[in-house]
Amino acid sequence: MAAWGERLAGVSGVLLDISGVLYDGGEGGGAAIAGSVEAVARLKRSRLKVRFCTNESQKSRADLVGLLRWLGFDVSEGEVTAPAPAACLILKQRGLRPHLLVHDGVRSEFDQIDTSNPNCVVIADAGEGFSYQNMNKAFQVLMELENPVLFSLGKGRYYKETSGLMLDVGPYMKALEYACGIEAEVVGKPSPEFFKSALQEMGVEAHEAIMIGDDIVGDVGGAQRYGMRALQVRTGKFRIFWCSLGL
Amino acid sequence: MAAWGERLAGVSGVLLDISGVLYDGGEGGGAAIAGSVEAVARLKRSRLKVRFCTNESQKSRADLVGLLRWLGFDVSEGEVTAPAPAACLILKQRGLRPHLLVHDGVRSEFDQIDTSNPNCVVIADAGEGFSYQNMNKAFQVLMELENPVLFSLGKGRYYKETSGLMLDVGPYMKALEYACGIEAEVVGKPSPEFFKSALQEMGVEAHEAIMIGDDIVGDVGGAQRYGMRALQVRTGKFRIFWCSLGL
Repeated sequence: MAAWGERLAGVSGVLLDISGVLYDGGEGGGAAIAGSVEAVARLKRSRLKVRFCTNESQKSRADLVGLLRWLGFDVSEGEVTAPAPAACLILKQRGLRPHLLVHDGVRSEFDQIDTSNPNCVVIADAGEGFSYQNMNKAFQVLMELENPVLFSLGKGRYYKETSGLMLDVGPYMKALEYACGIEAEVVGKPSPEFFKSALQEMGVEAHEAIMIGDDIVGDVGGAQRYGMRALQVRTGKFRIFWCSLGL
Repeated sequence: MAAWGERLAGVSGVLLDISGVLYDGGEGGGAAIAGSVEAVARLKRSRLKVRFCTNESQKSRADLVGLLRWLGFDVSEGEVTAPAPAACLILKQRGLRPHLLVHDGVRSEFDQIDTSNPNCVVIADAGEGFSYQNMNKAFQVLMELENPVLFSLGKGRYYKETSGLMLDVGPYMKALEYACGIEAEVVGKPSPEFFKSALQEMGVEAHEAIMIGDDIVGDVGGAQRYGMRALQVRTGKFRIFWCSLGL
């Protein structure tokens, strides 16, 4: 870790992905990745601003932070940028009332949102909630709208659990896009708006910030397109290899 | 119907779509579309060769023909070109053993196919069978293959039932394509190979044939790209409007 000081020259803020970087999900909640609890503590003791930037959308921020604190991380809700709260902000700003196709674990994030007489659809990684019946309902809501609006919390293809690879929200977003002939608005990485809000909340410009994540598309590609530096970790090891833009 | 003779000059074979052209599906099996039973009878009494070309993949050919005969149509199994038997032919030719994500109603078509130790995936309109668990299983099978091969029986976006619009196989094909980073092979309309086999079975060249269907993409577009003429019916009326290529 000695080289961090030099390599982070000009960097004043660090965005940290959570799943696959700080911990691996799985049975019983998951486990911290070796070295990550201490790495976060060091970063927070340094001159750098730190913020957590996740696409987690099966859990509310409160539940996610609870899990992380239980695993030993120094983190609070106010330090986390996550898709569901970002989506709620957009819904309010645009006066939209969503039909929700989301995991029960994240539903509480939408408690303050009017979901009557829906004029848009929000999908997130719903897991088993992606039944034919639920997908068909979301499809029917979209087809009844004059201007169908579909929000997708992230667009990941799949993720790994201890039981094997699992379909993420992206494939289901593609399914609804094709069925309705529309394009979804992605809320979460790699959307530029999502990085923008995370940086604003941290009070750091893009060129002064670095994103540390495990996803080459969502984390690294998205951050670089937004003018940030990016690092990809090798999940489970917290060893870092320096990406194309370099540091 | 008097103008048929003139308009079909040069045509020696007619391919008829089934669902939405001959009958509308729904509770209790469905109902013949007004005039269609008599229209098929007339066609079969005429100088024209007639064949049925369907993307139906929730029912076996035997069940489909049974339903049509019960509705009054003069049709036999040997006159029907359908995706499941076409897929079985391809699987045998290429020595492929499929993992099947299909409706129970069509599973019997695959009775003679080896499905042990699968080295490809076949999806069809599985309806409620498109659970998260079943989709994830198909995804996992594909991801374990060195060269993942996905067959999709048709690629329709949706269809109409009495209870409303229903997602067809196409959206789920797109989901697996995106998840695995692959492109599916479509068996059924609008695939050129499918029209080719229907025409071969009828013994008619493309330029001598006309496709009559209700789907502008699957029936009309597909047939025209294969060098056939095409008519789109206004579902439920059997009134015909002449498409761009004209007759």
